[in-house]
Amino acid sequence: MNYPNGKNNKYHKTIDYANRGMDLEGIINDTNKYLLENDIALIYKKPTPIGIVDVSYQNNKQVITKAYFASPSTLDYNGLYKGKYIEFDAKSTNSKTAFSLANIHPHQLLHIKNILKHGGITFLIISMNSNYYLLEGNVLLDFIKNNTRKSIPYSFIDEFAYKLDYNYIKGLNYIKYVDRIIGGLENEDV
Amino acid sequence: MNYPNGKNNKYHKTIDYANRGMDLEGIINDTNKYLLENDIALIYKKPTPIGIVDVSYQNNKQVITKAYFASPSTLDYNGLYKGKYIEFDAKSTNSKTAFSLANIHPHQLLHIKNILKHGGITFLIISMNSNYYLLEGNVLLDFIKNNTRKSIPYSFIDEFAYKLDYNYIKGLNYIKYVDRIIGGLENEDV
Repeated sequence: MNYPNGKNNKYHKTIDYANRGMDLEGIINDTNKYLLENDIALIYKKPTPIGIVDVSYQNNKQVITKAYFASPSTLDYNGLYKGKYIEFDAKSTNSKTAFSLANIHPHQLLHIKNILKHGGITFLIISMNSNYYLLEGNVLLDFIKNNTRKSIPYSFIDEFAYKLDYNYIKGLNYIKYVDRIIGGLENEDV
Repeated sequence: MNYPNGKNNKYHKTIDYANRGMDLEGIINDTNKYLLENDIALIYKKPTPIGIVDVSYQNNKQVITKAYFASPSTLDYNGLYKGKYIEFDAKSTNSKTAFSLANIHPHQLLHIKNILKHGGITFLIISMNSNYYLLEGNVLLDFIKNNTRKSIPYSFIDEFAYKLDYNYIKGLNYIKYVDRIIGGLENEDV
């Protein structure tokens, strides 16, 4: 199931690496569709939070005529896998050397802390240097706690995040690492 | 903690029973705020799903100038309690005799089935006859499976749903019954 370099797998899609980061949301949506259709997990992208200012009626139908995009205070994707609560966000960076912490809103960091406190599973999927990584919430929080710098070096991500595989049919194999995280949680109980 | 008739509890708010159903969303939002602030559970209302048609720039800020409300295919509230995934919807009815199944979209029913299949906790909170009820997802699905009628009689709800208590500070005590549902799930494993 794992093809670390993908070269010999007929299901691996040819990817335009220059634009790869831009496709991250689409890739995750496709992955979640695969997980839903194959009864593996229920993961949805939350609707974009907006503030509605004006609504009018046109042909007996409500039409929003003025609204603003609101800042997200939670993460973009959440759902259910094996009864467990999962929430994560997708972040892309063009920097080859570091992932800026400015990519994460302070409210989102607080939310990650809260999810962990309540026994949920939370992480970031980061697209960087033509790779996809799953960075666990607690690893992210530990980095912030122990470092004063405002970005995470790529070397840290490459060492401490899980490197994901992309498959044309199955998308990103992040559920594999969710299983590993659940395994770790269950061992903690023992 | 439970005051079934609420008469002797100074924290019980005087409620305008005629308008009570209309306040259901506000009551649930207040409850979830209480649960969050007291570190009991993380439950959020999902943003309203909309389809954005036009966006323009005004003063360097993006403004949505045309959008439609989309039909919900999931339930309005979801979140995390003791590591478990929870999703529910709030429904009010003015009928004193029956809760119309037209209140629930077919996609929502399918979603309830999926949540149960993946080990999540799902239910409706129904405001009816000046009471609040928690109707478990599997009880709802069983009713639909075993009945041809297009509404659930009030007598069924009063017998098979949990009657919730409202408290001015704590809101609706639905978490008490989530605990009971989790207990049932855990017993199934034994």
